[in-house]
Amino acid sequence: MVETKHPHIVVLGAGFGGLEFCKNFDDPNARITLVDRTNHHLFQPLLYQVATAGLSAPEIAQPVRAILRNQQNVTVLLDTVVDFNLAEKKVILQDSVLEYDYLVLALGSCTSYFGHPEWEEHAPGLKSLEDALHIRSNILMAFEKAETEPSPDTHDRLMRIVVVGGGPTGVELAGAFAELARHVLRSDFRRIDPAQAHVILIEAGPRILPTFSPELSVSGQKQLEALGVEVRTSTMVKNISEGRLDLANGETIHAGNIIWAAGVSATSLTRKLGVELDRAGRVKVNPDLSIPAHPEVFAIGDMALVPQPGGKPVPGVSPAAMQEAKLVARIISDDLAFRGAVKRPAFKYWDKGTMATIGRSAAVAQVGKFEFSGFIAWLAWLIIHLIFLVGFRNKLAVLFQWFYGYITYRRGARIIIEYPSQASSVPRSSPLTTAPKG
Amino acid sequence: MVETKHPHIVVLGAGFGGLEFCKNFDDPNARITLVDRTNHHLFQPLLYQVATAGLSAPEIAQPVRAILRNQQNVTVLLDTVVDFNLAEKKVILQDSVLEYDYLVLALGSCTSYFGHPEWEEHAPGLKSLEDALHIRSNILMAFEKAETEPSPDTHDRLMRIVVVGGGPTGVELAGAFAELARHVLRSDFRRIDPAQAHVILIEAGPRILPTFSPELSVSGQKQLEALGVEVRTSTMVKNISEGRLDLANGETIHAGNIIWAAGVSATSLTRKLGVELDRAGRVKVNPDLSIPAHPEVFAIGDMALVPQPGGKPVPGVSPAAMQEAKLVARIISDDLAFRGAVKRPAFKYWDKGTMATIGRSAAVAQVGKFEFSGFIAWLAWLIIHLIFLVGFRNKLAVLFQWFYGYITYRRGARIIIEYPSQASSVPRSSPLTTAPKG
Repeated sequence: MVETKHPHIVVLGAGFGGLEFCKNFDDPNARITLVDRTNHHLFQPLLYQVATAGLSAPEIAQPVRAILRNQQNVTVLLDTVVDFNLAEKKVILQDSVLEYDYLVLALGSCTSYFGHPEWEEHAPGLKSLEDALHIRSNILMAFEKAETEPSPDTHDRLMRIVVVGGGPTGVELAGAFAELARHVLRSDFRRIDPAQAHVILIEAGPRILPTFSPELSVSGQKQLEALGVEVRTSTMVKNISEGRLDLANGETIHAGNIIWAAGVSATSLTRKLGVELDRAGRVKVNPDLSIPAHPEVFAIGDMALVPQPGGKPVPGVSPAAMQEAKLVARIISDDLAFRGAVKRPAFKYWDKGTMATIGRSAAVAQVGKFEFSGFIAWLAWLIIHLIFLVGFRNKLAVLFQWFYGYITYRRGARIIIEYPSQASSVPRSSPLTTAPKG
Repeated sequence: MVETKHPHIVVLGAGFGGLEFCKNFDDPNARITLVDRTNHHLFQPLLYQVATAGLSAPEIAQPVRAILRNQQNVTVLLDTVVDFNLAEKKVILQDSVLEYDYLVLALGSCTSYFGHPEWEEHAPGLKSLEDALHIRSNILMAFEKAETEPSPDTHDRLMRIVVVGGGPTGVELAGAFAELARHVLRSDFRRIDPAQAHVILIEAGPRILPTFSPELSVSGQKQLEALGVEVRTSTMVKNISEGRLDLANGETIHAGNIIWAAGVSATSLTRKLGVELDRAGRVKVNPDLSIPAHPEVFAIGDMALVPQPGGKPVPGVSPAAMQEAKLVARIISDDLAFRGAVKRPAFKYWDKGTMATIGRSAAVAQVGKFEFSGFIAWLAWLIIHLIFLVGFRNKLAVLFQWFYGYITYRRGARIIIEYPSQASSVPRSSPLTTAPKG
């Protein structure tokens, strides 16, 4: 499949890293094949808003083909990576085999249960649209069940949501669940009071948002508590079973929903590369982001362990993945143009700061030495996410949903969708074919 | 559960009929319990746009609780009807039993395969959000598979979509699929040309849109053919198996997707009522819409067979369901106020007309003796559907999607969502927790 005149670059993964590579690599003589197992780029930073019924799935996802429609040198393939043959420069997909001259690995990370994969079914993580819709249905269904539940104990359990993990995702989920119950559902139920909903955020370390400054951790915790979230730091999870969380201190919490936001690891496919990995399964790359002994193979984003002068590796965040993608695009371009005569530069991460939103007018942000919290941080968060959300239509749609939600305190995606389809014992009563008329 | 001072009215189904009853019945002394097996009212007339990737699911669905939040006499219950005990005035639900003084049956219809339930898995119908998302994923996936398919025969099969049934739903689906392939996907694929997609509409009768005038049938067919749809009338289906349609004339059509829009019947629950049904399973109601021998039980909407003076029964369309709901609300109010001293009026259907959309600027409409087609009919269709769509947020969101789609020829919901979740062999490469920064 490789034509000598047109070098073939295979990119695996259409997340922030993979897409940014395609956008930045513009050598018209090279062909790119971009492989992803879904048909869309997912804007993960807003995934928690799908899980908490604020946005609909298509509003944060954009078809990969539509994003790259004008880049004629890119072919998009919907397929799943199965294995690698680095010696013969081949990637084995489920439906085909691709030969490459250069390979860019941007396969990302998955939810990690730290050696307890059996917890997954009782405490789902949040990595895909399917995960988000699953969590949304479960939470809304728990409130529906509570509405008719006669036993007070079961009722309280149904109204309890535990979020495990005090990083940005855990904080964002806990805050959004608390707001959903307090503001949004309040007037909709007759027998239960959704304001009784009890959201607990559990963090093993001494403070939430550990990558932020201690002051912002305190501010974040206060903002969460103002929404009614119970924040429990220095709390270790010992076991998770159906609707039940056992803590290391002997305590047991019963909850209708348990969400896992405590950790991620690199895709398990890294184990098939035959190179050194760290404990989280990440590939230890060279300073130019190539993998050891294979200058034609690069790993970027969450699946790469990129060393930094200070000792701490580059964090697994989207700006890092995008900066890495740009460097790899430049290195491959130079390689092709100068036949390896140019020395490859080393990757240098530019930390633009981090932020996490907590709720309505509540957030924390850290940019270099500057720290913000409350309304200003929240406004900055909104604007930055709208700017980076892929697709003009999605920007407008999300802006509209946020504006409408801010004014009315309501959420636009409170729809329980069941999969697989239920038996049709109670079909809908509206007609199939004809429109109402005025 | 029945308090003598506060009569209890149980309404089954939150479609157009059930909701309209709740909105129109305002006796503060009576309690209403509205039961549905989903948490949302579905605006079925726009369901085909979810199936054809134009709209997202939450844009045409509204939580029942949110619609009725201000009607304190209404309790909403998410539950599934299992059986009836009309003698003891009880409805048996999956999780509880409801006693009633009055019962309003508004359970609607389901897809009917005319005695061939085994066709359902090969030719899904379109009645629920799950159905629509399933069809959307299947169609988009067929194009993705065609992109890498080496065999010309298989390629052609994947690019072929058959819609069975030439009523308004079949016409709307066929037109929308043709447009999806012709305009929307054209520039997104490299190897296939989605404009090669072959959409076939099959109708057993001599003309499509048989409830419209012959002139509008001709106009509708011409508008479909202008979009590239192959319209085949007087064509009977003999058998359907996986990807294969056998016609009565001996011909066989192979297609990547077969959609069934050829018929509906009343919910199968009508069989548990012990009253006379017609061939489509509809309840033969009295002129006041009560069922025989039970003046306290009413059936409305698609599940009721309502006779008309002319001979033809009232059609199964949403305006009919809503008009019936209003009459039943008035009858029960009068019953309660005057203790049965008032003679019940008979239902009289006011036919406001029918319309079907075919594509961009293409539609047919019939209002009494007036007939419209083309742009004017299409514009009327847009406006009327926006007016009747439940929820102000949804009206604005759908208006935005339509306007944007009209200008750009793109669709906003081209997202394949897989259920149940795929094995996570290729996780997404974007980070979970941190926002990109500007």
